[in-house]
Amino acid sequence: MGSLVEERSVTGWAARDASGILSPYVYSLRKTGPEDVSIKVLYCGICHTDLHQARNDLGMSNYPMVPGHEIVGEVVEVGSEVTKFRVGETVGVGLLVGSCRACRPCKSDIEQYCKKKIWSFNDVYTDGKPTQGGFASHMVVDQKFVARIPDGLAPEQAAPLLCAGVTVYSPLKHFGLNKPGLRGGILGLGGVGHIGVKIAKAMGHHVTVISSSEKKREEALEHLKADDYLVSSDAAKMQSAADTLDYILDTVPAHHPLEPYLSLLTVDGKLVMMGVINSPLQFFTSMIGLGRKMITGSFIGSMEEIQEVLEFCEKKGVSSTVEVVKMEYVNRAMERLEKNDVRYRFVLDVAGSNLTG
Amino acid sequence: MGSLVEERSVTGWAARDASGILSPYVYSLRKTGPEDVSIKVLYCGICHTDLHQARNDLGMSNYPMVPGHEIVGEVVEVGSEVTKFRVGETVGVGLLVGSCRACRPCKSDIEQYCKKKIWSFNDVYTDGKPTQGGFASHMVVDQKFVARIPDGLAPEQAAPLLCAGVTVYSPLKHFGLNKPGLRGGILGLGGVGHIGVKIAKAMGHHVTVISSSEKKREEALEHLKADDYLVSSDAAKMQSAADTLDYILDTVPAHHPLEPYLSLLTVDGKLVMMGVINSPLQFFTSMIGLGRKMITGSFIGSMEEIQEVLEFCEKKGVSSTVEVVKMEYVNRAMERLEKNDVRYRFVLDVAGSNLTG
Repeated sequence: MGSLVEERSVTGWAARDASGILSPYVYSLRKTGPEDVSIKVLYCGICHTDLHQARNDLGMSNYPMVPGHEIVGEVVEVGSEVTKFRVGETVGVGLLVGSCRACRPCKSDIEQYCKKKIWSFNDVYTDGKPTQGGFASHMVVDQKFVARIPDGLAPEQAAPLLCAGVTVYSPLKHFGLNKPGLRGGILGLGGVGHIGVKIAKAMGHHVTVISSSEKKREEALEHLKADDYLVSSDAAKMQSAADTLDYILDTVPAHHPLEPYLSLLTVDGKLVMMGVINSPLQFFTSMIGLGRKMITGSFIGSMEEIQEVLEFCEKKGVSSTVEVVKMEYVNRAMERLEKNDVRYRFVLDVAGSNLTG
Repeated sequence: MGSLVEERSVTGWAARDASGILSPYVYSLRKTGPEDVSIKVLYCGICHTDLHQARNDLGMSNYPMVPGHEIVGEVVEVGSEVTKFRVGETVGVGLLVGSCRACRPCKSDIEQYCKKKIWSFNDVYTDGKPTQGGFASHMVVDQKFVARIPDGLAPEQAAPLLCAGVTVYSPLKHFGLNKPGLRGGILGLGGVGHIGVKIAKAMGHHVTVISSSEKKREEALEHLKADDYLVSSDAAKMQSAADTLDYILDTVPAHHPLEPYLSLLTVDGKLVMMGVINSPLQFFTSMIGLGRKMITGSFIGSMEEIQEVLEFCEKKGVSSTVEVVKMEYVNRAMERLEKNDVRYRFVLDVAGSNLTG
């Protein structure tokens, strides 16, 4: 049935328990099925989700767990039915490796909202085996969940686009916010926020970074080329910026008030929540009704949008700001990520690392 | 400059203080200006906003105050520049009688979101005089804020459409929810909720009334012709209705949890808040992000949409369910409205009342 080789052993770095500490782990990959693409991993970004899952912060972790879902690799084998990819091509894989293909979201090409989606790691595949992510030498992935990395994008640059990049691109597109001339706000300047500034700028927006302190002003304006920087505790500046923004991408992953940011939105302005926050957030109905404002959220993006954001960033020359590290640094990188001590995304040089530790 | 007659004295029923008790009050109307329409009031609906303002519930009331903003009347005089209306026509006036005409919302024909909008009562007009509403024999209104009542609509039926009706019509249209085949929920079955069921049904939707008790089941299904009735405390039924609704119009004007209703929404479903609630409401980001759901609000509708909803209801044969009362009953009607003891809207027969008490 198109399987080209037998199951094979690979080495990844896995967490063994809720300490989240990663170490080399040998496991087997399924045979390359007719629709599968076998990938040699080159680079893999490190996202907060990897940290949360490795440490069982969401209470749903299974071990051993090989994290990693911003994966860029080289095709080493394709199944008999694979038409989209050829051996030797550079490809990407994001947070999902499967979905039901039958539900309304799947049929509408928004498979990220399928209730039966399969996560790239810490999930169970259709064959009953655990999924393992991109902190590993190889992966086998259904072609539907593989994107082509455009020639003009460096692979380590492309990695963060597969999750962080599409996470900002998808809502901007879906909510009609991808046209030039809009005024946008980016709340929170981490991995997602920094690429949010770059993508919004590339769309031709006037971009304001909103932060709780002055700390990142120079970084935002000089390095990320934001147009404006607003400190949320500066009441006078917040007041004078009221009713000016068409949207705010809220990437803050902790509890925070929404009123100050809803005030910044113009009529029909959209507050797009991107962080998963474990305590409830609050709003007054008058803050939304009297300006037809919207509080919404968005979850990564579709495979179609992943392909689009890659091509958009190639065309517009958008590059992620990354710190490339070897696998043996991964535990230190996770610790630093927890403290937001990274500018702005760690990317593991998987192929350049000695995975056996 | 086109004024046809001098200022004239009229009688309305006004609240004098925060007791909200109304009694006859004589005041003068401005001369009919070039752009003005002078209207003899026939009928006027009673909305919760009238009650709140009369009793200073929002802390911004000025007395004497003549409430009333669901006004249907007959044109008795038009200014020299008035081209849209002729003497003898039946016309309507809603919650607004003015706006700046220069801001983005005004220029986009969504003048209800103008920051300088002028309310039909308890506000100050451009001439510096207080605005007084439709619980009165006559009004003078700029033609921009006057709608034509279609011939096929009875005037007492049309009155609630000018506020309650357009309040549901506007978001359904704006958010692309006015196409047939959708599944909608109506939360709360008061003046706005009841017309919401009727308008949604007329748009070809499958309509579920969601209520806290069994009390209104027969009313919802038999009289209002809803397709389904869901009691929010019935966990099993709520669970089986999860992910089924394209939208919910939330008309509940008091604090309530949102999670149960967000669960009912399908991917891309919209929760439209219509009540003004004085305490903050809560939500979890995961409830919106993982289904790209939206919490939004809407405020009445534009003059264009008021005209549309009137014509839509005429064409589709939608009638409000009203209890027509005389002006001398108004204080009792306000008391009953406070207890939601009305099926579903009081409409004052202004022209048929002895306004001098």
